[in-house]
Amino acid sequence: MKETYGRLCRGGLLLVSALPGGRPNVMTIGWGLVGRFWAGPFFIAAIRRSRFTHGLIEKSRQFTVNVPHPGMEKVVNFCGAVSGRDHDKFKETGLTAVKAKRVSVPIISECAIHYECRVIFKSEVVPSKVTKGVHNRWYRGEDYHTIYFGKIVSLYKSPRRRPLR
Amino acid sequence: MKETYGRLCRGGLLLVSALPGGRPNVMTIGWGLVGRFWAGPFFIAAIRRSRFTHGLIEKSRQFTVNVPHPGMEKVVNFCGAVSGRDHDKFKETGLTAVKAKRVSVPIISECAIHYECRVIFKSEVVPSKVTKGVHNRWYRGEDYHTIYFGKIVSLYKSPRRRPLR
Repeated sequence: MKETYGRLCRGGLLLVSALPGGRPNVMTIGWGLVGRFWAGPFFIAAIRRSRFTHGLIEKSRQFTVNVPHPGMEKVVNFCGAVSGRDHDKFKETGLTAVKAKRVSVPIISECAIHYECRVIFKSEVVPSKVTKGVHNRWYRGEDYHTIYFGKIVSLYKSPRRRPLR
Repeated sequence: MKETYGRLCRGGLLLVSALPGGRPNVMTIGWGLVGRFWAGPFFIAAIRRSRFTHGLIEKSRQFTVNVPHPGMEKVVNFCGAVSGRDHDKFKETGLTAVKAKRVSVPIISECAIHYECRVIFKSEVVPSKVTKGVHNRWYRGEDYHTIYFGKIVSLYKSPRRRPLR
């Protein structure tokens, strides 16, 4: 958890989503929470409704979160800067999508830690429920987040410990 | 975070709530998430609507989370077994409520780590948004949780490192 939180704050984590059998997409997330809910381990991710990833999670109700190694900053920045609608980010970055253990969405083999998640609950950020300060800072464009409560069905470290390139 | 998660799974954490100037209440929580949201550190707590704590947080929009030391299991169990409507749990357990740094709700001096939180957003668990499995296991009595997104405005370890008694 310490490593996950550290990476969230420094650069971000890589969230992968895909339709069953479809081309996977990867986006960078700088927000997320890890803990325990409904007596199990959970990863909470917040995705704006405009994102390509949003549509994929809505349909598949699965995602993986991958904690990058130090040295992967360039790739992490790129995955946060362009959309999967226009880019095949796996192809363009050289990241390798490999089969996950318990979900159909792949993990990223170059990363250090992998969370495999199934969406159990979701919550919508709505203007009436959020403080004025948060609204003015994050939602002036009205592109609200959906908050996905992903049950962690598998969590492991990758044996490969060297950075991408 | 590791210690917080470990205690969540083994016995639980102590959540304190209070109205301004009122008698504080403490309850045990076995669920919670820690991470980053809206560019800041957050603690998410889920409280059933029937709980005494629920009314206090609704009004004060603040809470503290206190990570107990090993050896405090008896107190932690008691605080999870009785309601603050009928019991002054601080008085009955001998726990000491001391002034927090940045919220008006107190912390518990006998604990190891203290999270001071202000509620920035809340979400209601609703039957239509949760999986059938979760609904059947946790909400047969229809006593749903409110999920409080508490911004961590202060986080520190307690200098006192010995168990309560």
